[in-house]
Amino acid sequence: MTLITLKWAPPLVQGLVRDLRARGALEEAGIPYDVMQIGPDEQRATTHLARQPFGQVPALIDGDVTLFESGAIVQYVAERSPALLPSEPVARARVTSWMFAAVSTLEPAASNLQEVDWFNAKEPWAAPRRPAVMDFLRRRFGSLADWLRGREHVASAFSAADILVTSVLRMVRHTELVAESPVLASYQARCESRVAFQRALQDHMAAFAKQDVGG
Amino acid sequence: MTLITLKWAPPLVQGLVRDLRARGALEEAGIPYDVMQIGPDEQRATTHLARQPFGQVPALIDGDVTLFESGAIVQYVAERSPALLPSEPVARARVTSWMFAAVSTLEPAASNLQEVDWFNAKEPWAAPRRPAVMDFLRRRFGSLADWLRGREHVASAFSAADILVTSVLRMVRHTELVAESPVLASYQARCESRVAFQRALQDHMAAFAKQDVGG
Repeated sequence: MTLITLKWAPPLVQGLVRDLRARGALEEAGIPYDVMQIGPDEQRATTHLARQPFGQVPALIDGDVTLFESGAIVQYVAERSPALLPSEPVARARVTSWMFAAVSTLEPAASNLQEVDWFNAKEPWAAPRRPAVMDFLRRRFGSLADWLRGREHVASAFSAADILVTSVLRMVRHTELVAESPVLASYQARCESRVAFQRALQDHMAAFAKQDVGG
Repeated sequence: MTLITLKWAPPLVQGLVRDLRARGALEEAGIPYDVMQIGPDEQRATTHLARQPFGQVPALIDGDVTLFESGAIVQYVAERSPALLPSEPVARARVTSWMFAAVSTLEPAASNLQEVDWFNAKEPWAAPRRPAVMDFLRRRFGSLADWLRGREHVASAFSAADILVTSVLRMVRHTELVAESPVLASYQARCESRVAFQRALQDHMAAFAKQDVGG
């Protein structure tokens, strides 16, 4: 399999670019993979848009198969690893529900905080909007914490869903939102201390470092 | 199967509540289902939070299996209908990629427009923020339109992905965003003219109407 990632990203988002999710799943599944790093011009090229219509990363190539969207890639990898996505229907339903919850209920709330704090921080509406964004995010994270109370993982065992949910908690690492919730903090630490995640993170960061040297 | 939906929703969002996605998939798959409608108190009840940790709808119960998140529910139904989710790997990858793109790349952009136009319209930051939200959404919809040029559906045939993508186009029905793009307008019309969608929409709206009479 070949994972398409960025050649470079600003330090602010290094450790957050979504190829980290795909790398985490591939490491957990024990599937070897190559990496193809692309730059801004290549992101807008026809070849890449045929694989990733929004010009983003990651994308995954596996022979004739091409996937985009980190959620879809993690799911594709997880379908090849029973430890990440169980076949037993009750457990499987819980895992897929939380996979979608991560990317469509939790992540948009976290993205909106990055928007006011980073990407649109200088806009006159950013600061006035921030309290509403924080309030909304606190409620979302509160629901997640309620669910995790008394649980080690969102499903009955570590799964692909934890890769995605944890990656959203990382998105607000510039705040105290996770630290202020012992349940969320210990959950994140538990998932991120896994060997597979540590290896994925190291490779994700090393790719940027290599590029910094190259210019 | 039992689909959990709302007892009532304001007219503004009737026809947009996400149980419509699940109904569309169930109709396309030809799977009969029951409906359980819940009110605001029931949304916050422990029974419901055990099924849907964010207190939202829809949720789906199928014997011992419980699912939440419209994307996960549509996928669960689609796995029982080859017409909605092909087993052939290349086509399947395209469908799952677009399913995730619908709920995590397109939908958050549309939600942000609903936020400034409806749910937070009176906040002082709403109007100043609107141009940036529209610009972002236009770029997302532009990428979708580029992809759809020369295609009838996002994958090689109608699939579960079209149910989700079309539902996001519906979310901005109060604007000209779809109408101003002939490609998107004809795609939406093509998907929404399907018998299964029309039946799903009718049942979705009828549930609210019944409740209006009841008080």
